[in-house]
Amino acid sequence: MAAVQGLDWTDVAAKAQTKLINSIPAEWRIPYNQLPPDEQLDVTSFPKQSGLLTDEELKITESFATEIVGAVAAGEWTAEEVTRAFCKRAAIAHQVTRCLTVVLFDEAISQAKKLDQHFFRHGKTVGPLHGLPVSLKDNFNIPGKPSSVGFCGWALEPMRHESTIVGILREQGAIIYVKTNVPTAMMIAESVNNCYGRTVNPLNRALTSGGSSGGESALIAMCGSPLGVGTDIGGSLRIPAACTGIFTIRPSYGRFPHFDARSGMAGQEAVGSVHGPMARSVADLRLWAESVVNAGPWLRDPKCIEIPWRQVVLKPKPKLAVLWDNGMITPTPPVTRALRNAVKALKSKGYEVVDWSPEGHEEASDLLAKFFVADGGKSVRSILETTGEPFRPEMKDYEDAKELGVHGLWQLHIQRTGLSKRYLDRWAACEGLDAILGPTTPYAAPKNGDFKSVSYTGVFNILDYTATSFPTGMFADKEVDVYPSDFQPHNDLDDETRRDYDAAAVHGIPISLQLTGRRLEEEKMLALTEKIVADLS
Amino acid sequence: MAAVQGLDWTDVAAKAQTKLINSIPAEWRIPYNQLPPDEQLDVTSFPKQSGLLTDEELKITESFATEIVGAVAAGEWTAEEVTRAFCKRAAIAHQVTRCLTVVLFDEAISQAKKLDQHFFRHGKTVGPLHGLPVSLKDNFNIPGKPSSVGFCGWALEPMRHESTIVGILREQGAIIYVKTNVPTAMMIAESVNNCYGRTVNPLNRALTSGGSSGGESALIAMCGSPLGVGTDIGGSLRIPAACTGIFTIRPSYGRFPHFDARSGMAGQEAVGSVHGPMARSVADLRLWAESVVNAGPWLRDPKCIEIPWRQVVLKPKPKLAVLWDNGMITPTPPVTRALRNAVKALKSKGYEVVDWSPEGHEEASDLLAKFFVADGGKSVRSILETTGEPFRPEMKDYEDAKELGVHGLWQLHIQRTGLSKRYLDRWAACEGLDAILGPTTPYAAPKNGDFKSVSYTGVFNILDYTATSFPTGMFADKEVDVYPSDFQPHNDLDDETRRDYDAAAVHGIPISLQLTGRRLEEEKMLALTEKIVADLS
Repeated sequence: MAAVQGLDWTDVAAKAQTKLINSIPAEWRIPYNQLPPDEQLDVTSFPKQSGLLTDEELKITESFATEIVGAVAAGEWTAEEVTRAFCKRAAIAHQVTRCLTVVLFDEAISQAKKLDQHFFRHGKTVGPLHGLPVSLKDNFNIPGKPSSVGFCGWALEPMRHESTIVGILREQGAIIYVKTNVPTAMMIAESVNNCYGRTVNPLNRALTSGGSSGGESALIAMCGSPLGVGTDIGGSLRIPAACTGIFTIRPSYGRFPHFDARSGMAGQEAVGSVHGPMARSVADLRLWAESVVNAGPWLRDPKCIEIPWRQVVLKPKPKLAVLWDNGMITPTPPVTRALRNAVKALKSKGYEVVDWSPEGHEEASDLLAKFFVADGGKSVRSILETTGEPFRPEMKDYEDAKELGVHGLWQLHIQRTGLSKRYLDRWAACEGLDAILGPTTPYAAPKNGDFKSVSYTGVFNILDYTATSFPTGMFADKEVDVYPSDFQPHNDLDDETRRDYDAAAVHGIPISLQLTGRRLEEEKMLALTEKIVADLS
Repeated sequence: MAAVQGLDWTDVAAKAQTKLINSIPAEWRIPYNQLPPDEQLDVTSFPKQSGLLTDEELKITESFATEIVGAVAAGEWTAEEVTRAFCKRAAIAHQVTRCLTVVLFDEAISQAKKLDQHFFRHGKTVGPLHGLPVSLKDNFNIPGKPSSVGFCGWALEPMRHESTIVGILREQGAIIYVKTNVPTAMMIAESVNNCYGRTVNPLNRALTSGGSSGGESALIAMCGSPLGVGTDIGGSLRIPAACTGIFTIRPSYGRFPHFDARSGMAGQEAVGSVHGPMARSVADLRLWAESVVNAGPWLRDPKCIEIPWRQVVLKPKPKLAVLWDNGMITPTPPVTRALRNAVKALKSKGYEVVDWSPEGHEEASDLLAKFFVADGGKSVRSILETTGEPFRPEMKDYEDAKELGVHGLWQLHIQRTGLSKRYLDRWAACEGLDAILGPTTPYAAPKNGDFKSVSYTGVFNILDYTATSFPTGMFADKEVDVYPSDFQPHNDLDDETRRDYDAAAVHGIPISLQLTGRRLEEEKMLALTEKIVADLS
C-alpha cells in the first residue's frame, strides 16, 4: 500500500493510466487522429486497417490457440514472432477498447526467445502451451506488477507472489504478456472502475464487453489474445463471453487452481470464485483446461480436487432441458429467438428436449446477493478508503450493506443447502438429463451501463454447476427481434429491461447461450457444447 | 419441538431414558443384580457371560461385516438371524455402557425378513450390504425417530426426513437397528450429555469411549454392531475409534453423502462435518465405503463429489513422515512407545521414514476452535433454551463465545487458506510422501472426563485431509509406559495431561495411531492402513 501513501484516488488513477500507456512501445501508439472516430462503433477491423500488423501477424493473431501451438511445435512459427504479433495487436486493441491494465511485452518477448532457444536446442516443446501468449484478468498476480482489481488503492502496488495458475501456465509454455481490465472489486457485470475507466465492446463500442472479465472478452474479440483466463463468481466469465460472442467455461469450484488470485472480498467462501479460460473455440478452452489439469494442480492449490482429465463419450442424442425464462427477467428478443431456433434445430437432429422450470432461481439470486454483502461491504470499503476512492454507483448495495453476524450467515448456508438439494433432486428426476440450455444473460449485449441482471448466470454459482457460454452462430436482427405487443413484464426491472432494449443498437451482435451441467462436469460440458455448436452450424 | 413444549430438560431426559429402556424387549433386559458390578471395568466378555446369546449368535456377532454379508449371500445365515443376534447383543452392550439412544429392533427384524424373502425368491441379494446390521450415530435421521444430538430439546422430536446415507445404506441391503449416543451438539470429545448421560468404554468403564461418535465405538467394541456410521468435525470418528481400538476413516469433505444429517451447529461450513464408517477391520470399512460410493451419492447429495471408487496400487516401500509430537500435547507414554515401535518395525520392512514437523498444527487448532464458536454459541444456546437445559461444563467455550461478524470470519478463512497452502507445499516438497503417521490422540484412552485435547485430529479437519485411525496391535503396559524423568511439558495443559495419566488405569488398552493422506485419498489410505497393520502384525 506504500505506493499510494497520501495519494488521492484521482492522482493514483492518473498515474496508473500514464504508466499503462507509457508501457506500450511508442511505435505501437496510435496518434489520436489515426484512431477510429468515436462514432465508429465496430472497431474489430481496426487492427488490420491500422497498418501496424503485417499479413503474417494478421494471420497469426487470427488463428486459434490450438493452431498456434501446433504451428510453433511444428517449427512453422517461432514463439517470438507469435508473441510480438499478439503484443502489437493487444496494444492496438487497448487503444480502441481500454481493455488492458498491465503490459508485459518485454518480459513476454524475452520469455518467447528462451522458449525458442529450448525448442531449437532440444527439438521439442516445454509443454502443450509452448509459445502461446495467454492474457490474464487483472487479479492474477505476477511478481512486480500490480493487481488493481479495479481499485485505485491497489493500482500501483507491485505484487510479491505469483498466482498458482500463472506458474502452471508458464511451465506448460504459455507466455504471459498482458493483464486485462475489470470492474471495481470484480463485482459489477461491466468492466468499469475508477482507475482504468471503462472497457467497451469492440463489436459495438456503445455496448458493454460485460464483466467482470470484460477486459479479456474485449481483447479476445479483437484477436488481441488467443486465450485468456478470467474468473467467475456470479457470471464474470460467461457474461463477458456472451457480450462479445466468444466461448468460456465456468468450472465447478476446485477443478482449476485458484490460489493467490487477488480478490476484493478475500475470504468470502460461501460462493467460491472460480477461474476458467476464454477463447474463440471450444477446442481452445479444452487445450487450456486439459493442460492445467494434467499439471496436477492439487499438489499446489489446497482447494483443488484431484480429478484427472477424463474422456467423455456423449450420447448420440443428448437430453436437454430448456430454461426459456427465469421468471425474473424475460430474455430480450434476440436471445429468445436464438434459444427457440437452437431448440428447433437440435430437436431436428434428434436431441431429446424438455422444458425446465426456473424453480429456485429467484431464491438463488437472492442468496447470491446476500452472500456478497454479508460483510457489510467492509472488505471493499477498506480498500477504497486507502485513497479516498468513492463507491461506484453500481456498488450501492455494498455501500449500503449491513454486516451479518456469523449466525446469520449459517442460516443462509442452511437455506442454500436446501435449495441445492431440491435442484439436484429435480435434475435426478429428469431421467437422462445431460444439460440445461438457456440464456447466458437476458441480452445479446446491453448498452454501457445497462447490464442489470446476473440472475441467469448467478444461480449456477450458488449451485456450483459447470456452465459454458457459447455463441450460437445467430445474430441480433433489428427487423425481427422485437418484444411481443402483449409483453407482460415479470416486475419493474423486467420492464426496465424492455425499455433499455434497443434493437438497432444490438443489430448484428452475436447471440450466446448457456449450457449447464452438474457439478464438476467440465469435460462433458465442453464436449456437449462443441457438439451443439456443430449441430447448430 | 412441540413434543417438549413446557417440559423442563430434566423431565425430557427422564422421559427419553424411560422410552429408550422400554424399547428394549423385556427378555433382553438384565436385572440389576445380574449386571456386572460397577467395579467390573472390562465388560467386553459380558455378552457371553450373560447367557442371553446362543453359540451361533456369539459367532455371528463376533464376525466381521465382510464375513456376515458373505454368509448371508451364501445362504448360510439369514438376515433375520443375523439381525436378531445383533439386536440382542446391542441391548446387552447398552446396559453396560449406555451406548444407545434409539432402538429399532422391530423395524429391523421386519426389514430382515423382507430381505430374506427377496433372497429366497430371487436367489440373490439386493446389494453388497444385504442383511448387514449397521448402527448409526444419533444424528442420522430416520423418519419417526428422534435425533437428539445430545440435546434434551430434541430428544422427543420425531424426525420427518431420512438422511441421504440412511436411504443409500438401506438400498444396498443394510439393516438399521440402533442409533448411538453422542455428546451435546457432538462437540465434546467424550460421549456425555444431559439427556442420555455418559457412554463408557467397554474395555475399561473408568475410561471414555471417546466422542463424539463414542456410542458407536462402545457398541462396536462390544461386538454389538459389525459396522457403524459416525461423523467427524474435529476428530469425532478417530477419537472414539482410538479409545476403543477399532478402525475408522475420516474421509475428505464431499466423498460420502452427508445431506440431512442433524447438527447442533447447522450451517457451519468453514469446517465441514464428514461422516465415515467404524468397524473392526479395514476390509469392513472398505465394504461400506465402496458400497456407498458405488451408489452414486452425488446424484442425491449436492455436496458430494463425483469420484468413482478407485483402484490403488501402493508402492512396495511406502514413504511415511512421522509426527512424533505436535508441540502442544506430548503423547502419553503408551502412544509414544507404540509409534516408536511401529516406525522401527516398518523401517525394518523397508518403508522409507522421515520426520514430520508439527509446523502449522497449533495455528490449525486455534482456527478450529474459533470456527466452532464463530456464531457466539447461538446455535447451541437456542436449542438448549427450549427446555432450559444448561450448558455442560465441557461446552464453556460455547457458553462464553462472542459472535463474530462475517468480515471477521472471512479473515479466518484467509488465514486457513494460507495455512493449507503452506502445509501442502511442505507435503509436495517431501518427495514421494505417501502419508503422515502419528498419534490419533495423546492417550491410549483417558479416564472419563479427562479428554482434553483434540489437536492431533483437528488439524486434519482444518486441512480436510483423509485420515484413518487404527489399532497397532500394541497395548498400554503399566510396567514400561512411564513418563521420562526429565519430561518437560510444552505448556500447562501438557503438564496436566501428564498428571492425568494413570499407567495402571490404561494397562492393557489397545494403542491406536493415525495415518493421514492428502485430500480425497480414501482408497489409498484404506489400502495403506491395511498394509501397515499387516506389516506390524
